[in-house]
This record gives sequence, structure tokens and C-alpha cells, in this order.
Amino acid sequence: MSNDTRREAGNSIEILDTTLRDGAQGEGISFSVRDKLAVAEALDELGAAWIEAGNPGSNPKDMEFFRLAGGLRLQNARLCAFGPTRKKGGAAAADSGLQDLLSAETPGVVIFGKSWDLHVTEVLRTDPEENLAMIAETIAFLKSRGRFVIYDAEHFFDGWAANPRYALSTITAALDAGADRIALCDTNGGSFPDRITQAVTDTIRAGITLGIHTHNDADMASANTVAAVRAGCRHVQGTLAGFGERCGNVCLAALIPSLQIKLGFRCLPEGRLSRLTELTRKVAEIANVAVPDNMPYVGAHAFSHKAGMHTDGILKAPGSFEHIDPALVGNDRRFLVSEVGGRSVIAERARKIEPSITRDHPVTEALAAKLKSLEASGWAFESADAGFELLIRRELGRCPPLFRISAYRVVSEHPTGETIACSHAWAKVWVEGKEEIAAAEGDGPVNALDKALRRALTRFYPELERVRLSDYKVRVIDGKDATAAQVRVLIESTDGSASWSTVGVSADIIDASRAALVDAIEYKLIRDIERQKAAARVL
Amino acid sequence: MSNDTRREAGNSIEILDTTLRDGAQGEGISFSVRDKLAVAEALDELGAAWIEAGNPGSNPKDMEFFRLAGGLRLQNARLCAFGPTRKKGGAAAADSGLQDLLSAETPGVVIFGKSWDLHVTEVLRTDPEENLAMIAETIAFLKSRGRFVIYDAEHFFDGWAANPRYALSTITAALDAGADRIALCDTNGGSFPDRITQAVTDTIRAGITLGIHTHNDADMASANTVAAVRAGCRHVQGTLAGFGERCGNVCLAALIPSLQIKLGFRCLPEGRLSRLTELTRKVAEIANVAVPDNMPYVGAHAFSHKAGMHTDGILKAPGSFEHIDPALVGNDRRFLVSEVGGRSVIAERARKIEPSITRDHPVTEALAAKLKSLEASGWAFESADAGFELLIRRELGRCPPLFRISAYRVVSEHPTGETIACSHAWAKVWVEGKEEIAAAEGDGPVNALDKALRRALTRFYPELERVRLSDYKVRVIDGKDATAAQVRVLIESTDGSASWSTVGVSADIIDASRAALVDAIEYKLIRDIERQKAAARVL
Repeated sequence: MSNDTRREAGNSIEILDTTLRDGAQGEGISFSVRDKLAVAEALDELGAAWIEAGNPGSNPKDMEFFRLAGGLRLQNARLCAFGPTRKKGGAAAADSGLQDLLSAETPGVVIFGKSWDLHVTEVLRTDPEENLAMIAETIAFLKSRGRFVIYDAEHFFDGWAANPRYALSTITAALDAGADRIALCDTNGGSFPDRITQAVTDTIRAGITLGIHTHNDADMASANTVAAVRAGCRHVQGTLAGFGERCGNVCLAALIPSLQIKLGFRCLPEGRLSRLTELTRKVAEIANVAVPDNMPYVGAHAFSHKAGMHTDGILKAPGSFEHIDPALVGNDRRFLVSEVGGRSVIAERARKIEPSITRDHPVTEALAAKLKSLEASGWAFESADAGFELLIRRELGRCPPLFRISAYRVVSEHPTGETIACSHAWAKVWVEGKEEIAAAEGDGPVNALDKALRRALTRFYPELERVRLSDYKVRVIDGKDATAAQVRVLIESTDGSASWSTVGVSADIIDASRAALVDAIEYKLIRDIERQKAAARVL
Repeated sequence: MSNDTRREAGNSIEILDTTLRDGAQGEGISFSVRDKLAVAEALDELGAAWIEAGNPGSNPKDMEFFRLAGGLRLQNARLCAFGPTRKKGGAAAADSGLQDLLSAETPGVVIFGKSWDLHVTEVLRTDPEENLAMIAETIAFLKSRGRFVIYDAEHFFDGWAANPRYALSTITAALDAGADRIALCDTNGGSFPDRITQAVTDTIRAGITLGIHTHNDADMASANTVAAVRAGCRHVQGTLAGFGERCGNVCLAALIPSLQIKLGFRCLPEGRLSRLTELTRKVAEIANVAVPDNMPYVGAHAFSHKAGMHTDGILKAPGSFEHIDPALVGNDRRFLVSEVGGRSVIAERARKIEPSITRDHPVTEALAAKLKSLEASGWAFESADAGFELLIRRELGRCPPLFRISAYRVVSEHPTGETIACSHAWAKVWVEGKEEIAAAEGDGPVNALDKALRRALTRFYPELERVRLSDYKVRVIDGKDATAAQVRVLIESTDGSASWSTVGVSADIIDASRAALVDAIEYKLIRDIERQKAAARVL
């Protein structure tokens, strides 16, 4: 594409993230409603323009999400709901699927329809004219209800290759009906960049914003998206961490830096690109999936240098073995003794507790070293802000000894003659020289331990009565040794108004849970003390 | 590239796999000498033309490998050793590195040299003329010793972009000195296909075989390799499973099918492409790394269909939601068993056990109902094929009662005065009227229960001695009620040759693990019985 064409089309790209819809169709990906809300917040923080959040007609959980999503305070993103065109032979106004879409009450809707004649006759089993009517009437109906309509032309590139005239007629039908965006989809993921370039060039017209939606089945999702953008597409669909059917959708974390740093297209608001690594890992963490270490730009190994020659080269000339500066995407070069990006983040967090802390303060240095050794043994604080704050407080000596567990025992059993398994626990705690023991039954060993622990502590700290766990996630860090591997437990707690996250790691799942539970309780108690102090100062 | 150009260059591609050299430079990859021999055998079986097996000058383990490699009976591949040009200011014949290369006694050698003037002056710290002499003299010396010389032009594309004249003069030096192949390297992995096409076109001349070597730092490794091949390169370097520095080398398993099936280039000998999935997984297994589920062509999810609409489409028209037939690369289509997948999937699985089962058979109906109710309470069989087969067998009455657990108890505790937590368990099993009890300690409660259970059963079924868990995953199904929520445990077991997956769900993580463990053991025992029956029928 010449510079002239690029200027004409503008160099701003509109990002639509479909982690919550196409991503959720990936094997092994399953979001609770609460997870979906957290993902939407992270995508908004990154600065996606649109969040495709689900298919309200096919999934009651998605409908529940849209009901709660009204409470989200999104700064950058608008939500859209996803669904098919009206059913064949019906009327748009009477279509139950379209009613479901409208009831999601989102500013945008994404409608998918057929572009490939094979799909029209063999899968949809209707005639080509009816398919055009389904597209046009659906879009016109949703426009009449005030929605911003993004039309996903499913299998567009395969359809264009098989029958270009028909494929283009479906696009014309969508445009004439008033679609605001047309996203050309490589649904099966098997196209190559040359076909993408040709088909986009064949489709593009003045005054419309074309989009691109790719899958990675031939390892071409990024290259295909870049080809489409160069040919004029200015709306890009994908999933931040590359989740999606089969081999996944185009991975936005691996794509956006290429578009923005290397090709000069603006995809995210000012200052957001440097949060890409952090937010991609956060979204993956919510899905309980690890970001692959070798993921371009944001993977843990993306800027690691193992060969001595590479390390040596970088120390002599930074650009010699790195294609970009890792700080641009918030990632770290790995062989350096002091991780530059890491320390700034640590100092920033520590300043919230002690304003005098700088990047070069000994406490920052000690924390960086501690973090490094904890991470090496499987800890991760990206999703455990409260746990990380306690780490800082302990280093600063701002963590008064409020309690400790002297001993605990958890028993899970299935005795002969009983029909169900049961778990019970006791815990003995020490608070200011006094000991208390309490026991509880639970739905599982962790639940039993949590109850016993809080029961024992409530005698000293009645405010713990209101605390409960709101989320609990378990990750086996290295599955190779199976049940003997390290286990990482992430818990989210709430007292009704605030919520906070802590982490625990151990070979023993009970012990890892104990560590996260103790931190969660300690964080609550310290926060209450700090608040009382602050209130006293004001008075 | 026009068809004419392609005919001229031929449509045969020479594959060089560098898993054992560049792959071994990837973080977390470490091969023993025995591993290296096994990888070389697998790559030969696949039909790679060249195996770049190590750097004898930098690594004593690699020298040992080359000593033992003489005993390999390779059918397709030739080995090559890898190293740098002679040292600056020295003589090739006296260079200790080149002596090491020769002592590897491989038919081929790969020599890497500098193409980028920045590297010559800043990293190598010599003058451009001396660099040309280092390239030319090294190649001439190795040719005089009878070696097939592949010259790797390191950082060629960055060098060509910065100073094309100098970059091209390094290639001329190598060619004039008699290099048999020139591989153009995108060492930093940051190039885009347009630069690759332009640079290859600028470099190509009649009568020489150019090669391409890419890295995936911008998610463009496959696209860049395809662009280079289309521009005329006929030698392709990569690593079968995508191992390599930082984000990895181009993944040959994700690339070769594109070249061979879609673009008509011949990369592997007749009949080998269909072994791609198996051999890629084998190489990854040797490296003790899992092939990512979403890897194009060979990943476990590459042809999995979860959305009901996709499943339905494929059953109506196989090409409608798949870009190639998975059998071409030895992979399998998988309809994920889930409520949305529908009855067709269930019937297809049931037919493997009882061929008379149809979509409308009462057993299919009963299984669909059971699946629906199990899924509603949190079970998921999409990653638990063995667990689903047991469900079918139970419905068909093809699951003889082999054992049951009469009782178990698992204790996790942290007694006063002890510094670490510990877990222990006992389990009592019933087998054909006899009872046995056994106890074990473990790294956590599940590990302890697994050990106790198998210890008790081994008295009756000694074949369980070889069974072990190879992966263990925990998922909290809905975090809302936190530790009292349902927990889903997925385990993968192996007996050294086969591996299989089972699932368990309960509010109690121990009980969920118990359910998955019991199914895993039961599946193993039934499979052994079925095999003995089949063997008896043959005799």
C-alpha cells in the first residue's frame, strides 16, 4: 500500500476484542459471569474500542453478564452482543434471536451472516436470495432500533475465492441495509496473505470502514491481519491472548505492537501499549490459562537471551539482538541482573505505603530480589495485589504481628457405610499471647479450614465475621510431576464493600490455600487499622 | 511469484531442522546426548533433508553426540555441525573452532557470519573487509576438506535494510568461496513479509539455492518463510515444534503443511506428511515440553469443534469449517462432547464400542440426557475422552465391576512445632470379595491418596505398577461461592506407552480427585482386558 492510500484511509485502527465470545468458544476456556466482568474491565483499561461480550440468545450466562454490565464504568470501550441473522423464512421483527440481542441493551451488535455459497446451500440449506434478505432485513431492523451494527461476513475469503460475485453481493446487501462496519472473516483460518490482500482490494470502497477477523489455523493470523490493514481495513477483530476456536483467533497482544510500533497505525489510546504485557497476563490468568512463554512481544521468554553471544551483543549494541525495546510493550529483557521495568513498578507500589521510596532505594532492591526468587518457585503477584502489598509492608516493617496459626489439621474422608465424602478441620491460632482453637465442617478441605480459621479469629477480630471468599482458583504450575507438582492458589476475598486478592504456593494444595487465606485475613485487618489511623488524623 | 518462476526454481524444498542447535538455545529446552540421538531419529523418520545437530566448538555434549551419531542409521537426513567463521585476524587452517567443526565428521557444516555492518563494527569490532575475508576463507577451507557448506547469513534482512550493498557483498563473498547453500536469516525475528520478498528478490541469482531462516518475534515466522519460498528460496530452516531463542524459530510442523498441501511444494518424502502430528509430539515429548494445544495443524485443538453450529456444519459439509482434512497431517477431528455438540457426536463415540448404535438409539438418548445433567452440575468431558468412554460403557453394561473403594481418609496437617505441612492417606479397596488397605504419605493430599489407592490395588492388578499421573488440573467451576463451589479435576495418566484423561467433580477437591483417579484406573484395567480379548480372537 502506498503512503497516499494510507493517508486517505487514516492511520487509526479500531480494535474489537472478542475474548468473551469467540475466545470463550476455545476448548478449555470457560468464564463465570464474574470472570467476564473482570475481563471486560481489563480490556477497557487497555483501550479496546469494542468488547464483543457474548451471544445472549445461545447462553443464559451471557444474558446475565449483559444485565450486570450496566454497572461497569468503561472509559474506552463500548460493549456489543453477538448473534446470527434472522432465521430463514421468518421476519426480523418477530425473530426471537434478534429480540435477545436487543434485550442485551448494548450500544453495538455484531451480526454474522453467510458469504460462501457452499454454506448457504449446504449448511444453511436455503437459497442465495433468501440469504441476502436475511442479511439486509436483520441489519435494517437493528438499525431501526438505534444500534451500531457491525456485520461479520463469515467465511468471506473462502466464499470470495469460490464465488466472488456472490460473496460481494452479500457485502452490498449489508452496506445498503446500513451496516456501520463490515468485518471480513477468515473463519476457517486457512487463507494466506496474498488472498487477503486481493479480496480486501476487491471489496474496498470509499466511505466504508472495512474490518478483518482472522483465525490462526495456518499460522497466518497476524500476517493476514497486517495484509488486510495495509490493503485498507481499519477495524480489527481478535482476542487479546489469542483464545478462540481450534488454533485461536489472531492474538491481539502479538499483533498490536506490530501495527503500532512497526507500521505506524494507532490502535490504543496514548500510554496504553506499555501495559500490554501486564493486561494480557491478567486476562489469561482470569481464564486460568498461562500466556505461552514464547508469545511474541508479551511472553516471558520474548526478550530472554540464553546464548552468550546474544547477551554479549546486546550489551554492546542494544538493537543487535532485539527487534524492539521490550519496555514499549511493558515486557522485560531477561538476562539483566536488575530488571529495569520491574523496579519502577515495585517503587511505584511501595510509594503508596511509604512515599519516600525511590527506584534505587534499598527496599526496592530487596523487594526485586525477593520477587525474583518467589517467582522462580512459582509465585505470581500479577493477580494478587493484596498479597503484593503485604510483601512490601513486611519489607518495610509495616506489618504488625496480628495473629499466627499455631497448628491445623484437615481431614477429608469417605468412611465405610457413608454415601458421601466429608471434610472437617480444626485450627489453633495465637493472638497477642492468647490461643484459641476452633473446628468446622466444610464442603471440601479448604472450605473447612477457612471456616475453622475465621471462627477462631473472630473472638479477637469480630470484623472478620463479614469477610468471605468470593473466588478461588487453583493452578498446577508444572503438570509434569502431576499431583506432586507445585500448586498455586489465588483467592479473592470480600467484606461486602471492598474485595482483594492473595496468593499461596506449595506442593500441598491445603498448605497453599492456608498461605493465601492467612494473607487475605491479614490484609483486611491491616487495612482496617490504617483506616482508623487515617480517620483519627482527620479528626 | 508466477508459475513460470516456480517451475524454473523447481517445487522441491530442502528442509533443515535445527531443533538440536537453535532449538536447544530456547529457554527451558535441554537435551541429554541420548535425547539428541532420539530427536535425530525422529527427524529422519519424518524425512528432513538436513539435521543441524549442534555446535561442537561451544559444547562438549554436542561433540559427544557427533561421536555417537555415527551409529545412527539415517534413511533421509544428513547431519551438519554448526559454528562461526574463523576468528578475526587469524588463519582458517589454524582456527580451533573450525578444527572442532571438522572433527564432528559430518557431511555438512553450517557456518554463520555477519551481514549487518552494525554487527561487524559494534559487536564483532572489526572492519568490513576483514569480515568478508573471514567468510570467504572459512568457506574455502571447509570446501577444501570436502564438506557440503551451508552459509547462514546472520541478520541478513536487518543488514540488507540498513546497508544493502554491504549485505549483498557478504553473500557474494560466500558464493565466490564455493558455499553450497546461502541461508538468509531473520535472526531478530522482527521482519515483515514485504521486506523478505524484496530482499530475497534482490539477492537471488540463477544457479544458486537460497535458503530462509526465520524467528517468530513478530508472529511472522511462517508468513516470512512462505514469502521467501514464493520469491525463490528452496532451502528452509526451522525447528519441528517451534523451539528456539526467545519466541522460537519458525515451527516446521505449522509450516510444512502450508507449503506442501496448499502451495504445492514438496518438503517431505512420499507418505511422511501423515506422520507429522505423531512425530512433532514425539520430539516435544523428548524435550519434556507439551505441544501447545492450539498449534496449527498438529495441536490437540487444531481440529476440535465446540460450537454446535460448527459441529452441525461439518457433519453437513466436511469442508465448511475445516481448512484441510486433518488426516493429511495425521491429526484427528474432535467434536467436543458437550451439550452443544449434540447427539451425532455421542453416537459416533458410542459406535467405537458398539457398532450398532445410531443417532436415534435409546442408548444415545440416555447418554445425551445423562451428559446434560452431568454438565449442569459441572462435569465436562471435552478433555476427558477416557472418562467419556467409561460413561458409554456403563450405559451399555460393558463395564465389569473390577474394584471399589470401601473407605478412605486423607489428613493434611501442620502440627505445632513442625516447620512444614504434611499429608498422608489410607484407602481400603474391595476386589472380588477381598479387601485390602494401604497407606501412603504424599506431597499433598491428592498425591497421598493416589499412592495409597494404587498401593492397595497393585496386590490384585500388578499392571497398575507402571501407571502414573502425568498431568493434573484443577478448576473451580463457579467462583462465586469460593471454596464451597464445585471443583473439577482433570487428570492425565500414562502407563509408559498410552495416555488417557479422566475427570471428577465434587464440592470437595479430594472427592473430585478420587473420582478421576478411580476412572483412570478402571479405564486402564478395561483396556487391558479388551486387548487380551482381541488378541485371543486373532489367535
